[in-house]
Amino acid sequence: MNQQEKHVAIVGGGFAGLNAAKVLGNVPGISVTIIDARNYHLFQPLLYQVATAGLNPSDIAAPIRNVLVRYKNIRVLMAEVTSIDPSRRQVFLSGQLPVSFDYLILASGATSSYFGHDDWELHAPGLKTVEQATEIRRRILTAFEEAEMTSDRATQDKLLTFVVIGGGPTGVELAGAISEMCHFTLVRDFRKIDSRRSRVILIEAGPRILAAFPQELSDFATEILKKFHVQVRTGVRVESVDHHGVTAGDEFIPSATILWAAGVKSSDLAQGMGVPLDRQGRVIVQPDLSIKEFPYLFVAGDLAHFDGADGNPLPGLAPVALQQGRKAARNIVRDVKGKERTPFRYIDKGMLATIGRNEAVGQFRRIKFRGGIAWLVWLFVHIYYLTGFANRFAVVLQWAWSYTTFKRGARLILGRDWRMFRKREGERAAPPAPGSPPQP
Amino acid sequence: MNQQEKHVAIVGGGFAGLNAAKVLGNVPGISVTIIDARNYHLFQPLLYQVATAGLNPSDIAAPIRNVLVRYKNIRVLMAEVTSIDPSRRQVFLSGQLPVSFDYLILASGATSSYFGHDDWELHAPGLKTVEQATEIRRRILTAFEEAEMTSDRATQDKLLTFVVIGGGPTGVELAGAISEMCHFTLVRDFRKIDSRRSRVILIEAGPRILAAFPQELSDFATEILKKFHVQVRTGVRVESVDHHGVTAGDEFIPSATILWAAGVKSSDLAQGMGVPLDRQGRVIVQPDLSIKEFPYLFVAGDLAHFDGADGNPLPGLAPVALQQGRKAARNIVRDVKGKERTPFRYIDKGMLATIGRNEAVGQFRRIKFRGGIAWLVWLFVHIYYLTGFANRFAVVLQWAWSYTTFKRGARLILGRDWRMFRKREGERAAPPAPGSPPQP
Repeated sequence: MNQQEKHVAIVGGGFAGLNAAKVLGNVPGISVTIIDARNYHLFQPLLYQVATAGLNPSDIAAPIRNVLVRYKNIRVLMAEVTSIDPSRRQVFLSGQLPVSFDYLILASGATSSYFGHDDWELHAPGLKTVEQATEIRRRILTAFEEAEMTSDRATQDKLLTFVVIGGGPTGVELAGAISEMCHFTLVRDFRKIDSRRSRVILIEAGPRILAAFPQELSDFATEILKKFHVQVRTGVRVESVDHHGVTAGDEFIPSATILWAAGVKSSDLAQGMGVPLDRQGRVIVQPDLSIKEFPYLFVAGDLAHFDGADGNPLPGLAPVALQQGRKAARNIVRDVKGKERTPFRYIDKGMLATIGRNEAVGQFRRIKFRGGIAWLVWLFVHIYYLTGFANRFAVVLQWAWSYTTFKRGARLILGRDWRMFRKREGERAAPPAPGSPPQP
Repeated sequence: MNQQEKHVAIVGGGFAGLNAAKVLGNVPGISVTIIDARNYHLFQPLLYQVATAGLNPSDIAAPIRNVLVRYKNIRVLMAEVTSIDPSRRQVFLSGQLPVSFDYLILASGATSSYFGHDDWELHAPGLKTVEQATEIRRRILTAFEEAEMTSDRATQDKLLTFVVIGGGPTGVELAGAISEMCHFTLVRDFRKIDSRRSRVILIEAGPRILAAFPQELSDFATEILKKFHVQVRTGVRVESVDHHGVTAGDEFIPSATILWAAGVKSSDLAQGMGVPLDRQGRVIVQPDLSIKEFPYLFVAGDLAHFDGADGNPLPGLAPVALQQGRKAARNIVRDVKGKERTPFRYIDKGMLATIGRNEAVGQFRRIKFRGGIAWLVWLFVHIYYLTGFANRFAVVLQWAWSYTTFKRGARLILGRDWRMFRKREGERAAPPAPGSPPQP
């Protein structure tokens, strides 16, 4: 690093961090360190397909080093960030020397939130990491195996009941995909049980599913889910979750497989930094995405609270993160070049949610679309934005195969994973030495 | 099941068990239960490619239920076999009712053997399961990440030293593939370290690697490995393995990544059954693959000791297991039809071992072949025998991609897996309840 060179630290290799890095790549006078606890960038919007055995983890993940390989000024660090000192401009790492910076882009994202019921996580895993996705896949497939082995009708019913909590896009996608497994993929696989007897129940506390979409698209999605044999229950609060099942409103639903898609919570990293936070722990940023007190500190993606044109904070969507990451990086470049920063303005890319085979809903500005057309749009958008040519190719082939055969290729029940229950940044640690017990 | 119907239990869904099941599928008068602790059949010959990030687990695994879906007389049970009572004709399962049988085909295979040093396994995992393969992948990739992060030269050297113990086909394939990663795949990924500085050391206690092959092919393989920058050390015994490294002969080799490909041991299931065992714990079978004392009990695959034409027991190869599984099943069919059983005779399919890019060795009867031709034969044989059309397709595409780009698609560092250190049948148990700690 020469004297004039400015060093930018990026925390997080998600949509915001990775796209910030790409903007800063090979810019003269700037060097970059991007830090992530994982060695790969994860295409989160398709994670539910890993959880439902449609795709492999590596299809939707790309090694960060490789994505950024052509930028000679970028260093990639696989490390756990333990804390950040914005005044002394240092990022502290677990088991590593701290990283100093002239600028910081904080993009450590969000994790599942259990609204104070963290003990529910054991029984109702969220869907944020590859390990959680393969664990959910393991639970779904194991439930069928166990149902096939038992002769007790009540146990069978419990094993064949799948409860998805949370009626946002992830919940809808999960419920639709599980139902598709029950009614197509697995139908011929079992001798004793009929997988079509399974119940898939989607629970939403609010008055309707897909609340971010217009009412008519919610209604449409509800109808399609019913057609796909998913029971949709809205306006019902989950009171408790344990290994027997879910208590939703007054009803107890015995279930062996409960999935959590109900809430997200910001990364803990921002907490000790003395930056302004909203109630959900997001960092309230300036129009240029920096922090008032620390103008060299930018926040982008799910962790940023940025009010949109309608006065509400922008939602935690991939296009928001991507655009914010780029803008934060561009403002740093402008700083370095002595130009004035420009404010962030979100270019609305619309919203999409797939429900299942040939069925999706979408909204682009004032245009609403649904059914087969929305599904095709969903398909192309996700293939287009997926990182890495090989991934795109692999996903297209597997989808084509699944679509025509109704099969799902990745139906493996693998062991449970110690990383599964690590979700908060602060709790993460380097992988344990061989033989040391996991710390759930 | 009607009165005349004979029930065949098959323990193990490997090459022997799965092919036995296919022979018995839809045969009138026969019903079948195939039992395996996993829900998938694993194509073991390509497992080293999962360990070296070339393939996904699901590319080389096929759900047993799905492979056998068209046979209406076959029931698939995912369960752990705890013991077998050959006199009372019962297979005991963990947490399940026992399975009774008229005939049994025991094909529970083999696991890694540490020759009395079971504590070495922590530091030098074997390569028998998907979990072990992803753990090896994790260790290899993590070593590079950690080497990039440290500035201490000795630590870097230790992290960039990969020791493979055992010079059989698996060891040679692993060493060659790791070296290819160091010299091609990862070269541009790191800034501080030069992955080409890595050392890959292959240790063999015997006088030469690939001992089952003729001397000249061993020599050729040794030469090619040297060309690929693998250090081959023969006639060297491993004295100790720990987290510092390996002591081989008089030399201590500091290494953070040690892999075990040195020995196999038979499944423990046969031990308590009162059947004749050889010194390695394999069951000594009759010419028709049954046991003298229990003519309705057959053993096939790695667990069977069957003397070949040269008087030596047949090796633990996939073609042997496949042919024995079929023969055992055919002899049961002959029994049921009132025909006389026929003796097993191994049809030699030859041997193949790949060393790396464009290089392999092979032997088919008296014909020896090597180099590019052997590599092409290896390629086609493995694609041809791989179970499942979709798998074959996926593997061909990934190989074509890796071959042309020198990249490896599955470079994900995922969490460690609690199943990793379960290798003996008797120790296996049903997956723990959510939240209960793993038992390494």
